[in-house]
Amino acid sequence: MKINSDRLLENLRALRKFTDTPGEGVTRFSYGVQDANAKAFILERAKAAGCTVRLDDVGNIRIGLPGNEPGRPVVLCGSHVDTVRNGGWLDGIYGVCGALEVLECLAEGVKTGPDQPLNYEMVIFAEEEGSNFGSTMTGSKFAAGKYADADLDKLTDDQGRTLREVLAEQMPPEAAGKPVLTVPWDLTNIAAMLELHIEQGPVLERAGRSIGIVDTIFGMRVIEVTLTGAGNHAGATPMKERRDALCAAAECILTAEEIVSADPEERTVVTVGKIDVQPNCSNVIPEAARFSLEVRDSDADEINGNMERILHAVRQIAMDRGIYCGVREVSQSDPIRLDEEIIRQIHIAAEEAGIPYLLMDSGAVHDACMIAEAGIPTGMIFVPSIDGRSHVPEEDTKATDLIAGAQLLLDVIEKLRGNKGE
Amino acid sequence: MKINSDRLLENLRALRKFTDTPGEGVTRFSYGVQDANAKAFILERAKAAGCTVRLDDVGNIRIGLPGNEPGRPVVLCGSHVDTVRNGGWLDGIYGVCGALEVLECLAEGVKTGPDQPLNYEMVIFAEEEGSNFGSTMTGSKFAAGKYADADLDKLTDDQGRTLREVLAEQMPPEAAGKPVLTVPWDLTNIAAMLELHIEQGPVLERAGRSIGIVDTIFGMRVIEVTLTGAGNHAGATPMKERRDALCAAAECILTAEEIVSADPEERTVVTVGKIDVQPNCSNVIPEAARFSLEVRDSDADEINGNMERILHAVRQIAMDRGIYCGVREVSQSDPIRLDEEIIRQIHIAAEEAGIPYLLMDSGAVHDACMIAEAGIPTGMIFVPSIDGRSHVPEEDTKATDLIAGAQLLLDVIEKLRGNKGE
Repeated sequence: MKINSDRLLENLRALRKFTDTPGEGVTRFSYGVQDANAKAFILERAKAAGCTVRLDDVGNIRIGLPGNEPGRPVVLCGSHVDTVRNGGWLDGIYGVCGALEVLECLAEGVKTGPDQPLNYEMVIFAEEEGSNFGSTMTGSKFAAGKYADADLDKLTDDQGRTLREVLAEQMPPEAAGKPVLTVPWDLTNIAAMLELHIEQGPVLERAGRSIGIVDTIFGMRVIEVTLTGAGNHAGATPMKERRDALCAAAECILTAEEIVSADPEERTVVTVGKIDVQPNCSNVIPEAARFSLEVRDSDADEINGNMERILHAVRQIAMDRGIYCGVREVSQSDPIRLDEEIIRQIHIAAEEAGIPYLLMDSGAVHDACMIAEAGIPTGMIFVPSIDGRSHVPEEDTKATDLIAGAQLLLDVIEKLRGNKGE
Repeated sequence: MKINSDRLLENLRALRKFTDTPGEGVTRFSYGVQDANAKAFILERAKAAGCTVRLDDVGNIRIGLPGNEPGRPVVLCGSHVDTVRNGGWLDGIYGVCGALEVLECLAEGVKTGPDQPLNYEMVIFAEEEGSNFGSTMTGSKFAAGKYADADLDKLTDDQGRTLREVLAEQMPPEAAGKPVLTVPWDLTNIAAMLELHIEQGPVLERAGRSIGIVDTIFGMRVIEVTLTGAGNHAGATPMKERRDALCAAAECILTAEEIVSADPEERTVVTVGKIDVQPNCSNVIPEAARFSLEVRDSDADEINGNMERILHAVRQIAMDRGIYCGVREVSQSDPIRLDEEIIRQIHIAAEEAGIPYLLMDSGAVHDACMIAEAGIPTGMIFVPSIDGRSHVPEEDTKATDLIAGAQLLLDVIEKLRGNKGE
């Protein structure tokens, strides 16, 4: 079966317009107006194809194929529609549009094709980026049972509102009157989970391949470091008398970069993405600096080893500079090996289609991780990112690659449904 | 003549309450409500003493002694009432309260004492800290003719409003119906300028002296550096592929610290007080980092030599990291030697009073600089800062030192007025 590549690209382009920052990339936070608009657009297409829509307690959406029969195992496929601030037009939504394209193809096929032994459902996970509530993969964590009811009160947005409050206020109108799904989901009848996504890095482009078959998803550990020195007048305080929190932070940032860059495999990454300085005035020595620091790798021992080396260095730097150092563990996730059998099926489908592919790690985490962690056979397909860029307005992928990825997704899902029925 | 030390301390304590951040230091920006309240408090006292008040076009205030006679040379004395955000209770306002105490003493003296050959005026300069319009000593720059009418449109606050707009809207009500002074001031009849101030550094406390007689005021050069790299996904981008603007900024900050700390005289200082990162998200590699960088010294060659070494290093770091580097010169002021004769008079007065004093540099700039630069004989008196701290809520000075400084100020002004009449 062939996908309708024009329809795929048209859907993607239409959804690009749902942004809070037109002209400056896509900003579409979960539970906001543009998030609701994007979902309404997708649901309209799904309903036109005769699909059933279920919304769960935290805003995850599952859309079932018309031919699905109750009780049969399900192949699940999807991603998220929310973005970071001033992000790109493909992160998340490409996987949703791919899953939608598969849905529309299969829905058309239902009318004429053979009945399949496996159900198909597409899924849209809520709050994957954590732009609102500071925790990535929030929706899939609730679906997989990693988050429970109590977390609705613990997760708060920038305005201090809890996720429970926001959900109560901003749940899309589709919720009303629909069969409601509850979190955690009953995963016992999920046969497989597939997620199509842009790579968000330079590996595929560099290698000249159109498809990445993900083997391992990096784990990560995120901490927040608060350095407190002494604010003072920038003119009247000699260098030797200073306890400058920003100079200390600068030394920590450089040292962390140095420690991780020493990795002979060049795989571990460390990022300080966020820093806030107090009082942040040009003529006052910084009193305090607070920064995030995250380490990622495909090997948990490497993550923890690097993080411990960094923490040791940070504490030493702070001590040497007479600066108080506080460290808060923000989050931690283990590296995840994806399902061998699904990897094999993607591999076969790519070979059959004659597309150049690469078996690779994913440095980014994805909703698929949460489903995989819950023991469901899971696979991920990547397409290249131009210049390896993502989470920025410039994020892009060649149309031919976008089409190839979605076609491969359909091929693999057909294979999985067919094979299970053999 | 003896000052009324209770009145001095009561005035200081009363003015401490005019803050936008009660309990978190003094935040009193020029042209704001608390700034107006503080000035109203001072003007009430001055008017009760029978003084005349003149306000100029940019909000500088001059208050003349009742006995002043038109045309006679003037001894000017004062400082500013505005503060940095979450600053201290003494920076600026101590010099204003000292000048006010002198005014009240002289006004009382007028009734019985001999007529003096020199007029006395106290002055309150507007926007010294630059908290509103990003440029320090704004009021005194206008008074001395360093800023002209066109600068009213160039100087903008954080909301993008020009100084001209803010002045039109927020000029204190005292403006109405008063004899208006125009900027630049006619300085031809200013015989001397004196400013009393807290040291804002640790030198006096360390040396166990109650008074600092300022010899040279540090010059400074302030630049703004913008580093633009490539924002990208924090997980999917290998370390070697990164052009991380914050890592580059960290290297610049540390290198600047290192360059300046190599000064064998331990006098030059460099400060990066303000940094802003884009997009400032924990899971996105920083695309851009913009930071202020200022170098101060009592020797202009040292300032420029250090700044050139820093700029060279910054450009090299940026080039090595594939990062675009933009540098904007923000402001520049030369070191200023204060008037030998006034220094001598302060010296004599301190000796006569038996107060332990120190001849010293000022690392901080002050309104007095602008008047001195205009060729007016100028002097500055410092009192110690506890733990050398300033521009923070903890800023403080022992009451005995506050009293000693104001008494010395009165002694010196009496001397200057007496000597000129000899």
